[in-house]
Amino acid sequence: MATVVDEHQTLRLQRLAQLAVGAGANVQEGQLVEVIGSSIEHAPLLRAISRAAYEAGARYVEYRYVDGHVRKAMIELADEEVLSWSPPWVVDRIKTFGEEGAAQISIAGEPEPDLLADVDQTRVGKARPIEAVKAYLELVSGRMLSWTIVPFPNEGWASTIFGEPDVERLWEAVEFALRLDEDDPAAAWKARMDELEGRAAQLNERGFDAIRLRGEGTDLTIGLLPRAHWAAARFTTTSGNDHIPNLPTEEVFTTPDFRRTEGRVRSTKPLSLQGTLVRDLEIRFEGGRIVNVDASSGADVIRTQVATDEGAARLGELALVDGSSRVGQTGIVFWDTLFDENATCHIAYGNHVAPNVLDEVPAPEDAESTGINSSVVHTDFMIGGPEVDVDGITRDGEAVPLLRRDEWQL
Amino acid sequence: MATVVDEHQTLRLQRLAQLAVGAGANVQEGQLVEVIGSSIEHAPLLRAISRAAYEAGARYVEYRYVDGHVRKAMIELADEEVLSWSPPWVVDRIKTFGEEGAAQISIAGEPEPDLLADVDQTRVGKARPIEAVKAYLELVSGRMLSWTIVPFPNEGWASTIFGEPDVERLWEAVEFALRLDEDDPAAAWKARMDELEGRAAQLNERGFDAIRLRGEGTDLTIGLLPRAHWAAARFTTTSGNDHIPNLPTEEVFTTPDFRRTEGRVRSTKPLSLQGTLVRDLEIRFEGGRIVNVDASSGADVIRTQVATDEGAARLGELALVDGSSRVGQTGIVFWDTLFDENATCHIAYGNHVAPNVLDEVPAPEDAESTGINSSVVHTDFMIGGPEVDVDGITRDGEAVPLLRRDEWQL
Repeated sequence: MATVVDEHQTLRLQRLAQLAVGAGANVQEGQLVEVIGSSIEHAPLLRAISRAAYEAGARYVEYRYVDGHVRKAMIELADEEVLSWSPPWVVDRIKTFGEEGAAQISIAGEPEPDLLADVDQTRVGKARPIEAVKAYLELVSGRMLSWTIVPFPNEGWASTIFGEPDVERLWEAVEFALRLDEDDPAAAWKARMDELEGRAAQLNERGFDAIRLRGEGTDLTIGLLPRAHWAAARFTTTSGNDHIPNLPTEEVFTTPDFRRTEGRVRSTKPLSLQGTLVRDLEIRFEGGRIVNVDASSGADVIRTQVATDEGAARLGELALVDGSSRVGQTGIVFWDTLFDENATCHIAYGNHVAPNVLDEVPAPEDAESTGINSSVVHTDFMIGGPEVDVDGITRDGEAVPLLRRDEWQL
Repeated sequence: MATVVDEHQTLRLQRLAQLAVGAGANVQEGQLVEVIGSSIEHAPLLRAISRAAYEAGARYVEYRYVDGHVRKAMIELADEEVLSWSPPWVVDRIKTFGEEGAAQISIAGEPEPDLLADVDQTRVGKARPIEAVKAYLELVSGRMLSWTIVPFPNEGWASTIFGEPDVERLWEAVEFALRLDEDDPAAAWKARMDELEGRAAQLNERGFDAIRLRGEGTDLTIGLLPRAHWAAARFTTTSGNDHIPNLPTEEVFTTPDFRRTEGRVRSTKPLSLQGTLVRDLEIRFEGGRIVNVDASSGADVIRTQVATDEGAARLGELALVDGSSRVGQTGIVFWDTLFDENATCHIAYGNHVAPNVLDEVPAPEDAESTGINSSVVHTDFMIGGPEVDVDGITRDGEAVPLLRRDEWQL
């Protein structure tokens, strides 16, 4: 019997790895590939992906495990200026990967989300290698990397969700959300991406001036930009490589006019951020800036992040998700942005989203005149759900229903 | 009771980590530190060392886990020229660490020594990033890095040794060999290094012309060089930082005149090399070169390695170890060179050893005229023991007993 179970597990890993390498990053013959485990617990999938990448013709697979415990020691003990320091060899590696047009596959699913809970939250918020993040965001904005993020079910993550390490239940939810229950998951994703791109085309056709969200604790109006398209998360690199940057993805999104964000918003799902759980987040915007942050836990991490740079307190993304989302259909709070942001509508403070949205990315110093935000931060949080009504506001001030009880209205 | 056991384990890890950071790499205030786990199984120690390094004043701790399974996929599936390719970002990182005068702590103790046993052994032998190895050897030869290697007991390693995952027994052996059973392990190591340096001084005073080893399957004469000193493994970097590169270390060693190696040698302990176990190795030398390699397992890995470059088939090191070695006293075959080479006398084919041995390192192209070997390979294997007699041969041809029944004779 043990053999049967192991074979099932091996096949499962292979299917997920092949989806990541295929429909996800779309690894090409001769391509350089980077695989990043955000924990050593991700080893089984990191290994399966590395092998699948070589099988798909990767020239060389670079891999890396992030260890939150070492990061915790740094945050607690290093000199303060080290927290935002970028090792030059890391910046060089990122630039090389851009020049090489590499593929990048990251693994999500945090086994220890509370790891940094007892650490000085101001230092946690400061712990970002600024130059490295900038170099990386340039690759992403410049469409130089075919990247994807996929999840790996593990005991710690399952315990966070279910209160017990029920990895099997998590695997089944993940397989449903990633369409791995379909005979041909890659084909299923192609069909879904076609649907989402259709929805983005509807929104682009209407040319709304703003989006308004209303619900318990939320009355937020977000201005839109004529030059920023609505899009789905199927990207094409400059070398013509199609990739799906998040698996799962269920959103249509745009970069809003950050200057015209007004009102207050209450998050509808918790958020796991830099090793801290943020619950009951409430944010108030005035004249396009975050002026107040409250939360029942983790508020300091948000406040510190929002103070990182000029753009951190301004909106960079607005995304709409309806009830046809498979993530939403599971009814599970995954405590992981990769999933939870795809269950429902969300916004992100910080950097803009560029691919498919902006034909041309303006220089960061032109943010005020263009309305397109720039920052080293980009943090999504969830604000939608059946109780939140979403309207498109036309240039004449008319409100057109977009979402009611989580149903798409156009 | 669980708490008591955990506290014991935490204290144990801390003592080992502090020895690695202190007496081992001797981490200085403001120093850059690299910690390398040769497996994700080494995580508990890698984390403890990283924390101890920050506590000792490290500016920044870079860490890395090596994953043998990804390496296995590369060896099986990558193009042949990729096997010896060095990612440029790796070479850059190595050079930066040299320029910064970094400390480096590597963790040994292989949990899966048979991982590559079913892989094409010629490809296994070829899998060396040549440029990166060269860059690294330059740092070591140039005394630019304060480095050490320490072990981490784990289930797989314990199973290899004992046939069962008796990690507790392995911990006790490791603690004995590393003098962690002493009240002040760092002081104990200082005393032992003083002893070994005294023994090296004796050998330097005698100025032997050659060393001869005789035993079952072994009759080997190795010429010595007047310019190469005998030394113990307490090194000093160019910036004056004392470090002990191997913990444990019990050897006095030199770089021989590779041109004057003649005879045959039978290894007295098995060797774990690049994921393959090499057993019953027998090597024959003629005119300073390896002309024949036999083994009951793993011979192909040795043969391929020996063919890597001009110097790979020539000797780079000769080391003497007697029965006062704590490693030898455990009576355990550890299947790990860090330990087994310190149980008994050994030689290494490939690159010379420079620190403390050579006042000046000749250029690789002068190897033939100087007798000092150069290679990207350096593989130690064990040839001593109670049954092997070791003599120093004077310039007049007189044989002076150095080791009889594992006892030091000078």
